[in-house]
Amino acid sequence: MKGQLVVLNGPNLNLLGKRQPEIYGRETLADIEALCRHAASELGFALDFRQSNAEHELIGWIHEARESAVGLVINPAGYTHTSIALMDALATCACPVIEVHITNIHGRESFRHHSYVSRVATGVICGCGIEGYALALRRLAILLTKAAP
Amino acid sequence: MKGQLVVLNGPNLNLLGKRQPEIYGRETLADIEALCRHAASELGFALDFRQSNAEHELIGWIHEARESAVGLVINPAGYTHTSIALMDALATCACPVIEVHITNIHGRESFRHHSYVSRVATGVICGCGIEGYALALRRLAILLTKAAP
Amino acid sequence: MKGQLVVLNGPNLNLLGKRQPEIYGRETLADIEALCRHAASELGFALDFRQSNAEHELIGWIHEARESAVGLVINPAGYTHTSIALMDALATCACPVIEVHITNIHGRESFRHHSYVSRVATGVICGCGIEGYALALRRLAILLTKAAP
Amino acid sequence: MKGQLVVLNGPNLNLLGKRQPEIYGRETLADIEALCRHAASELGFALDFRQSNAEHELIGWIHEARESAVGLVINPAGYTHTSIALMDALATCACPVIEVHITNIHGRESFRHHSYVSRVATGVICGCGIEGYALALRRLAILLTKAAP
Amino acid sequence: MKGQLVVLNGPNLNLLGKRQPEIYGRETLADIEALCRHAASELGFALDFRQSNAEHELIGWIHEARESAVGLVINPAGYTHTSIALMDALATCACPVIEVHITNIHGRESFRHHSYVSRVATGVICGCGIEGYALALRRLAILLTKAAP
Amino acid sequence: MKGQLVVLNGPNLNLLGKRQPEIYGRETLADIEALCRHAASELGFALDFRQSNAEHELIGWIHEARESAVGLVINPAGYTHTSIALMDALATCACPVIEVHITNIHGRESFRHHSYVSRVATGVICGCGIEGYALALRRLAILLTKAAP
Amino acid sequence: MKGQLVVLNGPNLNLLGKRQPEIYGRETLADIEALCRHAASELGFALDFRQSNAEHELIGWIHEARESAVGLVINPAGYTHTSIALMDALATCACPVIEVHITNIHGRESFRHHSYVSRVATGVICGCGIEGYALALRRLAILLTKAAP
Amino acid sequence: MKGQLVVLNGPNLNLLGKRQPEIYGRETLADIEALCRHAASELGFALDFRQSNAEHELIGWIHEARESAVGLVINPAGYTHTSIALMDALATCACPVIEVHITNIHGRESFRHHSYVSRVATGVICGCGIEGYALALRRLAILLTKAAP
Amino acid sequence: MKGQLVVLNGPNLNLLGKRQPEIYGRETLADIEALCRHAASELGFALDFRQSNAEHELIGWIHEARESAVGLVINPAGYTHTSIALMDALATCACPVIEVHITNIHGRESFRHHSYVSRVATGVICGCGIEGYALALRRLAILLTKAAP
Amino acid sequence: MKGQLVVLNGPNLNLLGKRQPEIYGRETLADIEALCRHAASELGFALDFRQSNAEHELIGWIHEARESAVGLVINPAGYTHTSIALMDALATCACPVIEVHITNIHGRESFRHHSYVSRVATGVICGCGIEGYALALRRLAILLTKAAP
Amino acid sequence: MKGQLVVLNGPNLNLLGKRQPEIYGRETLADIEALCRHAASELGFALDFRQSNAEHELIGWIHEARESAVGLVINPAGYTHTSIALMDALATCACPVIEVHITNIHGRESFRHHSYVSRVATGVICGCGIEGYALALRRLAILLTKAAP
Amino acid sequence: MKGQLVVLNGPNLNLLGKRQPEIYGRETLADIEALCRHAASELGFALDFRQSNAEHELIGWIHEARESAVGLVINPAGYTHTSIALMDALATCACPVIEVHITNIHGRESFRHHSYVSRVATGVICGCGIEGYALALRRLAILLTKAAP
Repeated sequence: MKGQLVVLNGPNLNLLGKRQPEIYGRETLADIEALCRHAASELGFALDFRQSNAEHELIGWIHEARESAVGLVINPAGYTHTSIALMDALATCACPVIEVHITNIHGRESFRHHSYVSRVATGVICGCGIEGYALALRRLAILLTKAAP
Repeated sequence: MKGQLVVLNGPNLNLLGKRQPEIYGRETLADIEALCRHAASELGFALDFRQSNAEHELIGWIHEARESAVGLVINPAGYTHTSIALMDALATCACPVIEVHITNIHGRESFRHHSYVSRVATGVICGCGIEGYALALRRLAILLTKAAP
Repeated sequence: MKGQLVVLNGPNLNLLGKRQPEIYGRETLADIEALCRHAASELGFALDFRQSNAEHELIGWIHEARESAVGLVINPAGYTHTSIALMDALATCACPVIEVHITNIHGRESFRHHSYVSRVATGVICGCGIEGYALALRRLAILLTKAAP
Repeated sequence: MKGQLVVLNGPNLNLLGKRQPEIYGRETLADIEALCRHAASELGFALDFRQSNAEHELIGWIHEARESAVGLVINPAGYTHTSIALMDALATCACPVIEVHITNIHGRESFRHHSYVSRVATGVICGCGIEGYALALRRLAILLTKAAP
Repeated sequence: MKGQLVVLNGPNLNLLGKRQPEIYGRETLADIEALCRHAASELGFALDFRQSNAEHELIGWIHEARESAVGLVINPAGYTHTSIALMDALATCACPVIEVHITNIHGRESFRHHSYVSRVATGVICGCGIEGYALALRRLAILLTKAAP
Repeated sequence: MKGQLVVLNGPNLNLLGKRQPEIYGRETLADIEALCRHAASELGFALDFRQSNAEHELIGWIHEARESAVGLVINPAGYTHTSIALMDALATCACPVIEVHITNIHGRESFRHHSYVSRVATGVICGCGIEGYALALRRLAILLTKAAP
Repeated sequence: MKGQLVVLNGPNLNLLGKRQPEIYGRETLADIEALCRHAASELGFALDFRQSNAEHELIGWIHEARESAVGLVINPAGYTHTSIALMDALATCACPVIEVHITNIHGRESFRHHSYVSRVATGVICGCGIEGYALALRRLAILLTKAAP
Repeated sequence: MKGQLVVLNGPNLNLLGKRQPEIYGRETLADIEALCRHAASELGFALDFRQSNAEHELIGWIHEARESAVGLVINPAGYTHTSIALMDALATCACPVIEVHITNIHGRESFRHHSYVSRVATGVICGCGIEGYALALRRLAILLTKAAP
Repeated sequence: MKGQLVVLNGPNLNLLGKRQPEIYGRETLADIEALCRHAASELGFALDFRQSNAEHELIGWIHEARESAVGLVINPAGYTHTSIALMDALATCACPVIEVHITNIHGRESFRHHSYVSRVATGVICGCGIEGYALALRRLAILLTKAAP
Repeated sequence: MKGQLVVLNGPNLNLLGKRQPEIYGRETLADIEALCRHAASELGFALDFRQSNAEHELIGWIHEARESAVGLVINPAGYTHTSIALMDALATCACPVIEVHITNIHGRESFRHHSYVSRVATGVICGCGIEGYALALRRLAILLTKAAP
Repeated sequence: MKGQLVVLNGPNLNLLGKRQPEIYGRETLADIEALCRHAASELGFALDFRQSNAEHELIGWIHEARESAVGLVINPAGYTHTSIALMDALATCACPVIEVHITNIHGRESFRHHSYVSRVATGVICGCGIEGYALALRRLAILLTKAAP
Repeated sequence: MKGQLVVLNGPNLNLLGKRQPEIYGRETLADIEALCRHAASELGFALDFRQSNAEHELIGWIHEARESAVGLVINPAGYTHTSIALMDALATCACPVIEVHITNIHGRESFRHHSYVSRVATGVICGCGIEGYALALRRLAILLTKAAP
């Protein structure tokens, strides 16, 4: 195993597939988890996959990931645009961080165009549907493999 | 073959690797082309890879791609933030469009945070280095494979 | 019984009546609950009345209400103006949502003039004191009675 | 009788029910008047119900109401967002003023989000359809009954 | 006759030719009326031509035109930039509406660059002098002739 | 007689002395008229003194004054900050125009700091109470006496 | 012949009729050229009709038109809102310039509301469909006929 | 004598009459002083008249005037728009303060539209030429005479 | 003992000393607690010292402090700039509140320049390192000693 | 002696205690000087305490302090928000600089929320009354003692 | 020879002397070239002097200059304010770059006040007429002579 | 001698060479004076070279220069961005004025991008180091030689 990748999901993502499918599609969070597990195992990494509606729980998990993870994927959902505390937590991580959004947030309401998280993320992938998670894990794998000769 | 994917590159990308490597890395446009050719072939698509410093040439190539391509990847570089004409051209494409930036534009100067292209793109991938191109092609392949049962 | 109405109260409302009575009046949250219970029973609906200082708890309760409630009243207090996550949660509700503020927020500091919740609420009642809750329940009752022939 | 309540309606409301029913519903101004008359009589108040497309006429009626009315309901329609003169007139009223909008103005174009009238109104009710008028009268009745021991 | 076209003129246009001729030219409102009558008759339409300094009178005439007219031309003058009520009235018209300004308002003070009326108009013609009215009537005639096969 | 001076008063000024005396003082419009008549007669000018709540009536009176008056004083009240139509009417006057406000509008709410009328007025006097009218008439008298050798 | 009129078309207009017909209609650029040729010949002027996706080519053609043309019509399309260079080129023309947009740009996205070209154009016609070109040529003919006694 | 009135003049006013007469007129500061001395003596007040280009000297003179003066007139010139220190000094004065500008600053460049001094002045007179000073003194005399029964 | 002082610490401060020491220094939260305990004991006050990543927990602790504390020090960290709920909680405290930031937030990114908490705090100390806490406790001690004669 | 600390006071602070005591308290500048002398002597530093209404004098004193002082406290008063020159002078100091405001400037008018001085200050203390000076000196003493092992 | 200096001229500068001489003067681009050749030869440098209306051609020439030139002068004309692509190209140059504008762009329309090019230029010279080019070459010569001992 | 050139230097420039050499270089004001004296003598002009930290002294010197100088160079330093009084003084000069900044102010903090002085200067030279002064004197010499046939 090449280490653990952590995937964190923010508020309301537990409703995925049940909520506004015309925007977010019909796949559920369980589908995303399955997709991520498949991708991680293929890439040779362990996976920790979580969701919370609570900003402080996400912050706590990021603090934990500072010790345990070699790479982090986060879909901060509604906290993307409002949480400086989340951004500050991510800024403390030495490992690479990829921000993922299922939809293209730049094609939606203007208050969704700005992301505090993007300021400290290594990369951002949005509008690629739930496949965006797999692309993000793939990116981490490439980065981490290169970095570990 | 599952059809042709087009990859378009905007102004100054011909200098890649020679210009500000601390920002853009040391890989050249030729490296990106090789990477894309490899990925496309692996995914079973033909590839058309181009670069131009001219806005109108990029627009013209997008017009051509409307006929010839099943998917489009574009790194609009400096035109990302200023060209409504480019955005209008992309809006005429029926095929999916992925916008790619090598660096995380949201972590740079504020005038690079807004993208006209993102308004009409299907997805956006930034800050994933030159691998971002491969991720974009991969995303197109998944989309196109699903769409063609 | 015509179904359950849910009334949710946001941060600091547990202090009502004890805190800045010149702004918020002298009635307590218990008074509001009594008022709501009275109104709901008069209108023939069951009532679930809750308060939390935690954004994620409010989000969780909204998720529950998606299943259990036929109508929702929310006084998001300080989260009104800052929580996109709360707005996103409410946007997933099929049932009508009435936003209530005890004071007229438009006559106060300018940062209280904008409400994310209003973007997705069915209706908004503010500056009607604690009676605003009763008016909101009444509005829901009329809507729900019309809708259920 | 407990005194007179005045209900004022601003520009274009005479077209209600005939104009953009997908936004404003199918009920007419006559329906609103009937609803208000019913509510006022139930609450034990006399009612004066008027509509005008003219800003100065509305101002004049507010001046009259300063003498004759114990409470005022106003739907300022298009003047909501542009008329400081109307706001100034309402600010001279000692009696309570409830602002009503049939639609939720915060869910529409951004130039409809700001209301000069809200700065001086006692309360605001919007997005409750034409029932909003009845709720407003009810609120006035409660306020006036409390105030008159 | 193919129906009636209505031409409405806003505040201060009664002074045309007498007021600031270096900006507005030397032709009078009577000249415009003559020009319009000539054009309408040539195009086979009846014409109703009016001017008012009163916002509510313009609104009232628009309400009338909803019944009587097949097309509407309006030069809202000073109300262009400030009257949401006028915009709301025009939005209720099913017939096409052409907004006309004698001068090029985009080449004047910045507060003249935004028009509420333009948001709901079918077309806008400005900076074409008083001929702009004839062009507008012509445009209506073409639209109406096409629409009525 | 040296000609006629016109004094125009905008919306709500008919309530002066009765409305918010802590802001506007206890003097009535009749007091202002008396003050103006006294000043005009002392300065040797005829006086025309009017008030209206209607924007169009004020515009009409300005149009009349273009013929009849040698100088104009206007307190546009609530229309100060919102009426381009009023500004346009005043811009057509060849005679000097003094704008008067009883209170210091720059010491009040920020939406009262900008005046469209000031852009075309010859001079502005505010915060001098009702004496501001007398000062304005005095200024006109000096200007007109100088101009007429 | 009364001289030459030049009609210039900006980026993406070569796709007209094929691209987003719900916005731009079904007529092609060839239809517009035919319409313009018909109008010009009727009005007694020669016509030069061109389209380019290249900003510099449009600038070059404007430079040529300074010598050859008596009037200019331009639909700058996507360059309308971003090209100061195009505006500067037009500002060097002594002949009248009419800006044309097929759609009403003021009813679309807010970044389409501002036009650099409008600052220097003689007149602007938008939202009149492809007939806008004919109206523009007509306006030029009237201006040029008047100007040439 | 009814006490001392102080008239303070800010930077560049020593050049009056020599500098840009098309904006500021041909009268000199000596002419203003003579006008003020005449007015003060007529009104029965002593006069202290000063000019300085130095912000701190103006502040020092205001501090002195707190003891010695019963009323203050100030033309802060270029410091009007930039000096919070001057505003703070004036805010410490118990006596009435009238701000004077020779030109109508609201009809000039936009950075001249905002005045820090106006926030704390009792009244503001602008665009009344050098007579503005006499009007200001007159206003002070009326205020002071009323206040001292 | 003169009563209890409460010191509250917001999100990510548990990482202090481990996270970005070039910005926040090398001292840990335990060091701050020791410093505060020493200062409080020297000043004769009891001390309650807490940290939480959760906004609602901080709000709850502030509610408790309303009963138990005579003074409050808070370093709201990332919630400083985004939490109206926290500000509202602090506004309910009768005791003095000092806001502390270890770094000078005005010398960092612009989104850190505004603090909701500062609007209701008694005093603010920033950029004094962890000593800022001791200075804050000292300030409270002086205030409370004065207030309790 | 551990070196000299310099305390500089800006415009209008000479009036302290006499001016607006409801805002600034009843203590005078002499009281502050006594407080500072006491604190400095206790901390073992010499003290230079000055006040000026003149920006250039403050700048000159800062230039002197570059040579003579080991630490600097400045209350820039009205120049806080407007003087880039003062900020530039402070930026040339190698020694630590603490900015002090007696009141909490963030709880006052919005133009007092921004400080140019804060951009270059080491620390900022505001809203701690005149004790803020003593806290600032204390902070400098701690910094300087640490720095001088 | 000390190496080659490149002088690039942007859109519309080919019209210099023929276009708006009241703004740009009567000298032509040929005059500027002569002036530059004279200055370069005097300073001992070779000169490459070019003009283009095409953004991509300017970008291409800058790419060439990276190899061939020891210093670069550019008058980007209309692209100054809009071209991030041009700025990006210049940012890749190791040699010094001087931006030149014939007129003082800061004394013209506000959209000409911001320059993307200035962000990466070594120096900027504007409002010095065509002599500005000679001053720029002179500056380069001094820089290059110093740098090459 | 062809007359006198005046060179004025604003606040903090007396520290040049001692202050932040990484920004402003190592040359002192004496070096600049020597450079200017050399250039002026070479060009055949007398030179008056001064520096002050005081805004009013600079204003006074500009007033003097109106009489004595044929050309003026000014480096307003920190007053560049804040002093309308300085701008007003310069606007009274008939002779040409060149504004100089040693650094490229457009490449620094955004509050340094706007210059009041540039609005009235003839030309602006920045980012050319201390040689900028010599270039400015040279520009004046050319202008003055041309103007004096």
